[in-house]
Amino acid sequence: MDALKRFWAWLLSYFRDGAFKHHMAVLFHRRKRAKITAINHPPGPAASSAIEAPAVIRQYEEHPSEAYMELKYRFRDIGRLEAIAETMGRDFLTAMPEGAWRSRLGQIAYLHRLVHEKLTGQDMVRLFDRARGHLAQNPGDWDEWDSANLREMIANHECDGAITGDIVERRARLEYEGRRRHRDALAQSDWPGAREFLSGQVDLARQIAEARAKAAGRNTLYQALMDEYLPGVSTMQVEDWFGELHKKLHKMLPPAMERQSREEPPREIGDFYPAKAQMWLNKALLQAIGFDFERGGLYETGHNPVEGGTPDDTRLVIKNVDIRNFMTSMKSALHEGGHGVYTQNLPRKTWRYQPVGQDMGSAVHESQALLVEMIIGRTRAFFDFLSPRAEGLFHGLQNPVLSAENLHKIKTRVKPSPDRKTADELTYFFHVEHRFKLEKELIEGRLKVADLPDAWNAQMQDILGIQPKNMAEGCLQDVHWFVGKFGYFPAYTVGHMLAAQQFEAMAKVIPDINGAIAAGRFAPITDWLRRNVHSKGCLLDFDTLVKQATGAAAGPDALVRHLDRRYVKAAA
Amino acid sequence: MDALKRFWAWLLSYFRDGAFKHHMAVLFHRRKRAKITAINHPPGPAASSAIEAPAVIRQYEEHPSEAYMELKYRFRDIGRLEAIAETMGRDFLTAMPEGAWRSRLGQIAYLHRLVHEKLTGQDMVRLFDRARGHLAQNPGDWDEWDSANLREMIANHECDGAITGDIVERRARLEYEGRRRHRDALAQSDWPGAREFLSGQVDLARQIAEARAKAAGRNTLYQALMDEYLPGVSTMQVEDWFGELHKKLHKMLPPAMERQSREEPPREIGDFYPAKAQMWLNKALLQAIGFDFERGGLYETGHNPVEGGTPDDTRLVIKNVDIRNFMTSMKSALHEGGHGVYTQNLPRKTWRYQPVGQDMGSAVHESQALLVEMIIGRTRAFFDFLSPRAEGLFHGLQNPVLSAENLHKIKTRVKPSPDRKTADELTYFFHVEHRFKLEKELIEGRLKVADLPDAWNAQMQDILGIQPKNMAEGCLQDVHWFVGKFGYFPAYTVGHMLAAQQFEAMAKVIPDINGAIAAGRFAPITDWLRRNVHSKGCLLDFDTLVKQATGAAAGPDALVRHLDRRYVKAAA
Repeated sequence: MDALKRFWAWLLSYFRDGAFKHHMAVLFHRRKRAKITAINHPPGPAASSAIEAPAVIRQYEEHPSEAYMELKYRFRDIGRLEAIAETMGRDFLTAMPEGAWRSRLGQIAYLHRLVHEKLTGQDMVRLFDRARGHLAQNPGDWDEWDSANLREMIANHECDGAITGDIVERRARLEYEGRRRHRDALAQSDWPGAREFLSGQVDLARQIAEARAKAAGRNTLYQALMDEYLPGVSTMQVEDWFGELHKKLHKMLPPAMERQSREEPPREIGDFYPAKAQMWLNKALLQAIGFDFERGGLYETGHNPVEGGTPDDTRLVIKNVDIRNFMTSMKSALHEGGHGVYTQNLPRKTWRYQPVGQDMGSAVHESQALLVEMIIGRTRAFFDFLSPRAEGLFHGLQNPVLSAENLHKIKTRVKPSPDRKTADELTYFFHVEHRFKLEKELIEGRLKVADLPDAWNAQMQDILGIQPKNMAEGCLQDVHWFVGKFGYFPAYTVGHMLAAQQFEAMAKVIPDINGAIAAGRFAPITDWLRRNVHSKGCLLDFDTLVKQATGAAAGPDALVRHLDRRYVKAAA
Repeated sequence: MDALKRFWAWLLSYFRDGAFKHHMAVLFHRRKRAKITAINHPPGPAASSAIEAPAVIRQYEEHPSEAYMELKYRFRDIGRLEAIAETMGRDFLTAMPEGAWRSRLGQIAYLHRLVHEKLTGQDMVRLFDRARGHLAQNPGDWDEWDSANLREMIANHECDGAITGDIVERRARLEYEGRRRHRDALAQSDWPGAREFLSGQVDLARQIAEARAKAAGRNTLYQALMDEYLPGVSTMQVEDWFGELHKKLHKMLPPAMERQSREEPPREIGDFYPAKAQMWLNKALLQAIGFDFERGGLYETGHNPVEGGTPDDTRLVIKNVDIRNFMTSMKSALHEGGHGVYTQNLPRKTWRYQPVGQDMGSAVHESQALLVEMIIGRTRAFFDFLSPRAEGLFHGLQNPVLSAENLHKIKTRVKPSPDRKTADELTYFFHVEHRFKLEKELIEGRLKVADLPDAWNAQMQDILGIQPKNMAEGCLQDVHWFVGKFGYFPAYTVGHMLAAQQFEAMAKVIPDINGAIAAGRFAPITDWLRRNVHSKGCLLDFDTLVKQATGAAAGPDALVRHLDRRYVKAAA
């Protein structure tokens, strides 16, 4: 009976997941094509080479649909412009002389306008129609990658087409200006200035949301913004997940804190950790998790870090190191490193600038960052690996502060605090929930920016029972709204959920995963991620990706299990 | 009688130089306009602020010709794309991870294609016609800057319009690839590989020259290439100048060398000069000559230095310092610094991206670099300023190597050698003449790349009486042909001529210029250059710029006088 069930499930997935179509396509194909399915093979001794991108550069590969061929060339150029904007932005944050910033803003905004012009050119619709027609009549000419590529092309066109070039340009300008405004607002605790700027950002975001909702024939404003960061996830879905997490994590908090209060508290870090040594450690750790420094690097900046880069040029940026606490920059490096390895392992050789070669959006991106930073980077095994090296690097032989036990204790200490970025893993969710609720109200017009500080504090009291001392600790702490990223916050917790799911799934196939981490052997982990997430680009939709990779639908269960294990049972 | 003559000359120049037209325009003008002529005022105590760009941003200023207005917007965007390509190229050479280089080539080439597309768009001709018509019928609406801007717009359009987008893209790719090929050819003395690549570059350059010559209805190939670097200068003119210089400098060489042979030879530099100290010195010197580090910087690179940057973002690049000789990196920094100060002082606030706001091309650019590096940077006065600081910086109190006399001796030592970049000021011209003759023959089809090494050596023997030891010292030494810059070399000597003329002219109005240099007071010099060269952008044609600034037509006389004074008479 079980065998029959499994066969039935397999048959269903075979047809649903496009494998059927792909096999048909292969059977009836007139053209020679590299075996893309190779990337689905199980890991083995030759795993690393088996999952290398096939030699065919699919971006330039002839396709019988002329319209699709033309679209591939256009999207190559759009992709180039996006990569250029990315590099100009990276340069803005890392190397550009200060005096260039006004003209640079204009240049970056103009690049975004050009992308918009090219994405929404008037004959694009005609090309899409012709390509879609070709696909319908000659399905055998389209394998799963080609059809996914066309699907993503159309999605990009529709997302950008809803708004005007003027709005695109304005948004890009305000994004970079927002970084400065945020820095200044924090430095000067300038609420009136911040309020005015934030009101402008909320207005612009609402304008964008309305235009998108109208174009899609819906009236859900927040969803229209969230779609950009969590494509394939609905607001209602997020509310369900968050509701469950809220309930379960609230229950976990007292026993976790109670258990820790019975232990000896950790010895605080507070020695002197030279900046050079910290950056060496951060780079060495990134190299260990598979980041390729031939195609990227790690840099310090006075600004906030920014995720991004391209598979060919992945320059990661973290905030200047704190010489009193090496764990601060390490946390940031591990987080950005998770983003970076994902970016670098996208199918760049085959689909460099094509939409199907891009990442799955912010939730999946954050899952890669949080998997490295929070899930793996806070295991006891990780600190077993780190501790002896830290003793040598920071000249503290058998210094009890640097013991694996102590470092682990520090990083798994649960303590509600007003700050999201330094929040512990258990209360992190509540910060995200808090922002999610507030930004939803802002976008849906139920909360005014002028009332934000009070609403922020009231809700913080409500959710975590604490009060920020000032605005810098309160509603000014995050850069997201300043740069116009409304709808991004849920990506952190959804990413955390996915990270927990991925870790559970890989632990089933990687023998003794904790032993591997303790030995600094991250290759099996990175290979698993490359095979199941990175190399897929945008081939699959969100639900399919998660299910194929982890064997289960996206949901909070794995995260709850992980947090329970680590914080209540103290077993990870 | 003299007074009458002078009045007559003034009257002629008044009408010829557009001042009459401008005054009429001001008299009959309906629009309020900032007084651009302010930048022609003589220097005074308030000179620095008097020559500040007027507050009006002319780029966006309303103009009654709608077509011209539309053109201003289009050229703003073209200028942005060029600035972006510039930054992407700078990043390529200074910060980009190595593995990104192939995709970066594609991005830069694509930016050049976009510029070409926008410059040659099919309705551009119609816009030019309409704007020209407006100018003819309403001359009062056009001041000298507007009409010069239109003139430059059309010139850019015609220069680019002669060649196809494919050629533009190929040229851009080969330019950056050429840098690597050159580096590798030098490292491996690989002539067969270099020959093949150079043949491709010559073919491409000839193709471009033919297309341009055809579009202009002429048949002078080399001129068509030289026009890009020395607009307004004819090949015949260059040949005349070079003929005269050849004769006079050949006569100067024996007495100069004979005189020096009678002196005690300089003590050689060969101590240890820490890289950090050298870079501090280089930056400090650039700051002294007026380079603004708010809008730029000085960086080391493993590649060859590249002139460039934009007025908002002028990142200068020099080759990695030689820790055995601080004068090597200093020479390079002074050279690039001269370029940089010119770039930074272009009329960026008023005409940021407009053609009239750009520089006058390579000859004038090199004049700024060589004025600082060769003319001023080798005066005895300069070493009087440098020497005591170098003693302190490099820990050599009263070290005879660092005496002003010795440093001056080193940098004014005349000795024919096979290398252009390290050539002394007197024999420098012969290297340029040598390249000029060879590249002219290459482009005009009278010399094949395969025969280049022999031709190079034979002519080197002929002109300077020396033989390169190998190809790295011979025909592989310069990067120019590898990056496709045929027609550039004359710019060095024409620039050297202009630099000598400018120095003579400014010495007449700056009291005790050598005293100023010896005291490190470069402000009067930079102010003179800003007023007479930098702030003009592309307002004037080559002949007018030179005559207005120096009071004489461009020619070799001032250079001959300068070299005679310094090397034969030993008086500078």
